[in-house]
Amino acid sequence: MLDIAIIGGGPAGLSAGLYTTRGGAKNVVMFERGMPGGQITGSSEIENYPGVKDVLSGFDFMQPWQEQCFRFGLKSEQVNVERVAKKGEHFAIHTDNGDFEARAVIVCTGGSPKRSGVAGEDKYYGRGISTCATCDGFFYKGQHVGVLGGGDTALEEALYLSEICEKVTLFHRRNEFRAAPVTVAKAQSKENIVFKTPTIIDEFLGDSKGLTGIRYTHKDTNQQETLELNGFFVFIGYDVNNQILLQEDGSFLCEMSKFGEVIVDLNMKTNVPGLFVAGDLRIDAAKQVVCAAGDGARAALSALAYLEHHK
Amino acid sequence: MLDIAIIGGGPAGLSAGLYTTRGGAKNVVMFERGMPGGQITGSSEIENYPGVKDVLSGFDFMQPWQEQCFRFGLKSEQVNVERVAKKGEHFAIHTDNGDFEARAVIVCTGGSPKRSGVAGEDKYYGRGISTCATCDGFFYKGQHVGVLGGGDTALEEALYLSEICEKVTLFHRRNEFRAAPVTVAKAQSKENIVFKTPTIIDEFLGDSKGLTGIRYTHKDTNQQETLELNGFFVFIGYDVNNQILLQEDGSFLCEMSKFGEVIVDLNMKTNVPGLFVAGDLRIDAAKQVVCAAGDGARAALSALAYLEHHK
Repeated sequence: MLDIAIIGGGPAGLSAGLYTTRGGAKNVVMFERGMPGGQITGSSEIENYPGVKDVLSGFDFMQPWQEQCFRFGLKSEQVNVERVAKKGEHFAIHTDNGDFEARAVIVCTGGSPKRSGVAGEDKYYGRGISTCATCDGFFYKGQHVGVLGGGDTALEEALYLSEICEKVTLFHRRNEFRAAPVTVAKAQSKENIVFKTPTIIDEFLGDSKGLTGIRYTHKDTNQQETLELNGFFVFIGYDVNNQILLQEDGSFLCEMSKFGEVIVDLNMKTNVPGLFVAGDLRIDAAKQVVCAAGDGARAALSALAYLEHHK
Repeated sequence: MLDIAIIGGGPAGLSAGLYTTRGGAKNVVMFERGMPGGQITGSSEIENYPGVKDVLSGFDFMQPWQEQCFRFGLKSEQVNVERVAKKGEHFAIHTDNGDFEARAVIVCTGGSPKRSGVAGEDKYYGRGISTCATCDGFFYKGQHVGVLGGGDTALEEALYLSEICEKVTLFHRRNEFRAAPVTVAKAQSKENIVFKTPTIIDEFLGDSKGLTGIRYTHKDTNQQETLELNGFFVFIGYDVNNQILLQEDGSFLCEMSKFGEVIVDLNMKTNVPGLFVAGDLRIDAAKQVVCAAGDGARAALSALAYLEHHK
């Protein structure tokens, strides 16, 4: 029987591992199917984690986390977790390499932004193409960026980018937006946000240094054009990795938002005692490393207190 | 008119400064009466901030924050803020060196644990005496520590320490505890927590390396004893720095808990639009640097979104 099972080895999971083991929990295992580090390891530059002033690649940035977070006795299992379920007073962790039991669980499986699938996207992702304005917008200060999408996130992020960049050109496949009308109106009132609708992105263009522009088609006229751009942001949806909370009867283990995020309170408690969630999987996540790390620490302290009172 | 006023220059305030300015806010001022860095600068060792693997003094730990968080245009005012109040649609920041106006405010004034006032406390504070079990408990792994206090925090923290330390001796001036009976019972059931009540701590004892023990008096018998200890934790209350939110009519600017902490949601929003709170001043704060920094980032993103919609 594990004291605490941590599912996911990104910033939230590693921080939870550090805080649970340093707080005296004896038998803590972090389950991560790949290498610990999470989504951020694929990032080309990070400069906004407070206290780490050097601009580092995501891979270099996450290196010290491994040593530090495993220093206090955290163990790890490199397996794929299929499902977390209640088992009596405890939890069952079903993996593709056998089952485990734990007294408390901290789920930190995060999520990932959807990609557009447009030609050239993989080639220039992280070299001009991004899915996070808060992370990467500043790298295009005073420049011209494109945005793809028509939902709340796309419009809100276009507004965010319009405060940093010289110009934002927004592409959407329809003339209508799913975003809240007030947000659309706000974006339309901005002088430096230009709308190109209805349009389809045909290809991302670039050279050896990265993205240089796009080729796109006006759907009304079927006319193809190219546009030079310094950067491009794709906001066409977000997949939360909540599958391990899905039970055999099709329900979720705990309360979820309509977007599939887990509902937590400020202590990272779900509505199921002993089950905690930290990082991008929870409601209102800022999707920033420092926020995920803070969540992980908070969830760890909540889990330790839970264990003290449920022995 | 400032776009955003940040009150307090600890981890929460600095992180908020980094995220607001890097997010394109043009006129952001951080108000801090002393040197930026906050409470943690007085800490002798920090090893649990994820991503900073070296064990550093609080002062050394906070050094890179200054350069990094001011890199994107954050300004600072070294003045004492007396009060934040509403002024029409905006906020007035009353300081001992004139008044400022701001469209949004992020309050990060934190708080501080109460000291016991016992002889020797200042001398050995940070060298054996602590007010934070999460921060410093691990440094006494397998050792014998004392705890002073009789409230929920004291008993909860004694339980936390009992998982790390060989033995915890708890001192309290009365036989009764303000802590929840279930928590007291839990602590009493722990073999390695010893209760010494009713007692008064007379003096902290030490040598050139730091704390070595205490001298205390049994109130029932008036008998004085000494006890060798490796560490000592004082949990006799917490002062939240909420004075600047106190209005001229005696009310608070926003909703507060019965403990004087500000009530916020997961986005660090208070019940007053445009007013955000991050760090140890808010309800359910974990009082950890990484949590305060995460709060600051989250509050900054909320403030930027607020400004976009209230221009």
